[in-house]
Amino acid sequence: MTNTTITIDALHERVDAIFRKAGLNPVQASAITRVIVAAERDACKSHGVYRIEGALRTIKAGKVNPNAVPELLPQDAPAIVKVDAKRGFANPAFELGLPVLVERAHSCGIAALAINDAVHFSALWVEVEALTQAGLAGLAMCPSYATVAPTGGNGPLLGTNPFAFGWPRDGQPYVFDFATSVAARGEIELHRRAGKSLPEGWAMDSDGRPTTDPEAALAGAMLPFGGHKGSAIATMIELLAGIMIGDLTSPEALDLLGTTTLYPSHGELIIAFSPQAFSAGRPGNPLGRAEALFEAILDQGARLPSQRRFIARAASESGGISLSAQEIEQLDRFLKQGLDGV
Amino acid sequence: MTNTTITIDALHERVDAIFRKAGLNPVQASAITRVIVAAERDACKSHGVYRIEGALRTIKAGKVNPNAVPELLPQDAPAIVKVDAKRGFANPAFELGLPVLVERAHSCGIAALAINDAVHFSALWVEVEALTQAGLAGLAMCPSYATVAPTGGNGPLLGTNPFAFGWPRDGQPYVFDFATSVAARGEIELHRRAGKSLPEGWAMDSDGRPTTDPEAALAGAMLPFGGHKGSAIATMIELLAGIMIGDLTSPEALDLLGTTTLYPSHGELIIAFSPQAFSAGRPGNPLGRAEALFEAILDQGARLPSQRRFIARAASESGGISLSAQEIEQLDRFLKQGLDGV
Repeated sequence: MTNTTITIDALHERVDAIFRKAGLNPVQASAITRVIVAAERDACKSHGVYRIEGALRTIKAGKVNPNAVPELLPQDAPAIVKVDAKRGFANPAFELGLPVLVERAHSCGIAALAINDAVHFSALWVEVEALTQAGLAGLAMCPSYATVAPTGGNGPLLGTNPFAFGWPRDGQPYVFDFATSVAARGEIELHRRAGKSLPEGWAMDSDGRPTTDPEAALAGAMLPFGGHKGSAIATMIELLAGIMIGDLTSPEALDLLGTTTLYPSHGELIIAFSPQAFSAGRPGNPLGRAEALFEAILDQGARLPSQRRFIARAASESGGISLSAQEIEQLDRFLKQGLDGV
Repeated sequence: MTNTTITIDALHERVDAIFRKAGLNPVQASAITRVIVAAERDACKSHGVYRIEGALRTIKAGKVNPNAVPELLPQDAPAIVKVDAKRGFANPAFELGLPVLVERAHSCGIAALAINDAVHFSALWVEVEALTQAGLAGLAMCPSYATVAPTGGNGPLLGTNPFAFGWPRDGQPYVFDFATSVAARGEIELHRRAGKSLPEGWAMDSDGRPTTDPEAALAGAMLPFGGHKGSAIATMIELLAGIMIGDLTSPEALDLLGTTTLYPSHGELIIAFSPQAFSAGRPGNPLGRAEALFEAILDQGARLPSQRRFIARAASESGGISLSAQEIEQLDRFLKQGLDGV
């Protein structure tokens, strides 16, 4: 099987055409395409072209509004930006809210974007990176599907609830983005397919007992990262990015669709901070001082998060993106057959 | 050795008198006393009367301004509240900023309090609890001393950087507050005194090798909780609550005093969210919906964080606080001898 190399722009065009063929309007198609192509460009396969199929299945199942045009809602509170995704994907809602969030963070010092009524699949690092490009620090979080047991509990309740942070730098930003479960659900699935046992501490079976059997884990629950501390953070995300913004929690998102195979419906919370506003009147430039911290981390031989992604990005930008024959075949099929291809 | 029971008010009076005797002005003495008494009342011994000695040593060493009167600084950005602690303790600075933070969070939807130039020892749960009493959710974080290695690193760089969150409830709030290191430094010290080995994964020696020897760990570095994820969160805290607010990072705080035996000088960041503002126009009451989530956690047999503290609080409120003969002797000595008692 030979791989095919394709430019970033050409991949964008092809993925966008797939989503248009599947019935998404231009605003939906182009925004979701930007995220999938950015992920594939960064060799972040978990959010790359592999995700197209799930999006198409969600469209086919009628669980996303293909014609949604997100709407910026009027707000009394100056530091809150609210976007109604109109039951479309979260990605165009984020793109609509971003410039307003940036403006509010610069003028208020700190501001938050709440996205409601969205179908969610985005990699949050895309969003915090966009904030760093505007000179802001950013924090993003959202619920997902109830597949994680709280520490001390015995069944799925919390989501894998991603938590992402970005800090602006002259070159590539400091960015992390991780699930608050010890492992992503996809990693358990990969162990199952490979017939391998899970490491200890990843999951429990449906009786709430520790298990290393992937099948039993998928029928049971995953565990939060870092014991009771990760469990507390995952709970905080349900509260802030689910309940506080008036949107669904992970158990509610699961109840709504009754499956984890389609993309979930829920909201998202993105907080933006202006380092210039926070540091005003204080000695030192925050962006310069941060570099000394990053250097100290690297001097120890530790890595900064996202370094691997940025290396892949540079390679894709100069040499294009390499896709397997199977991936190319899938793209061709989706482009030709639309929703009948899934 | 018999224990002595003392009312909360009587303990407050005694601790306040100790700090006045040690030279603190009324605003410093009363604020630090409130935190120590709240901790002792909640059987949170790590921030209780045990902490008085460290505060007195810090005063005696001339590392805190005993006459500081914190000042609210004028701000251009409406969602930022800034308090200059004037090199006094962080506690009176927080108390000064709190009502303004509450007002701004209600009017802006989200707001942040940055405390600068403080000597820090507070338990952050005290602060996020105060926000919940105003109907707000709160997130607090700060650097500390560089005693934790970043994941993949080989020496102390990050602080134990506490991270606390609170959510308002009718009764006791939902509150968590934890170090982003796998264990608190005090726990390693307790193992050393007891001649016990540390669990695996807590620490490295001064050559960066894993160790279970408490002496070697104290000379080396602690590890972050939850591997690279906890390490990333601890780094985020250095960036947001150190660098962004124009105050010291954990390595800078350690450089300044050259010891971890006195309380560190640095700032703090507290973010307040108005659930009413964020949920405006959305179905359901966020506070009521949160109760369903807490119930689901409890129904699994899991605990909510701080439950133990609230039980101790109720007992102290009805039956007083029980102190050991040694603790009473220490209080008497500090009260009589002031700074000569340490």
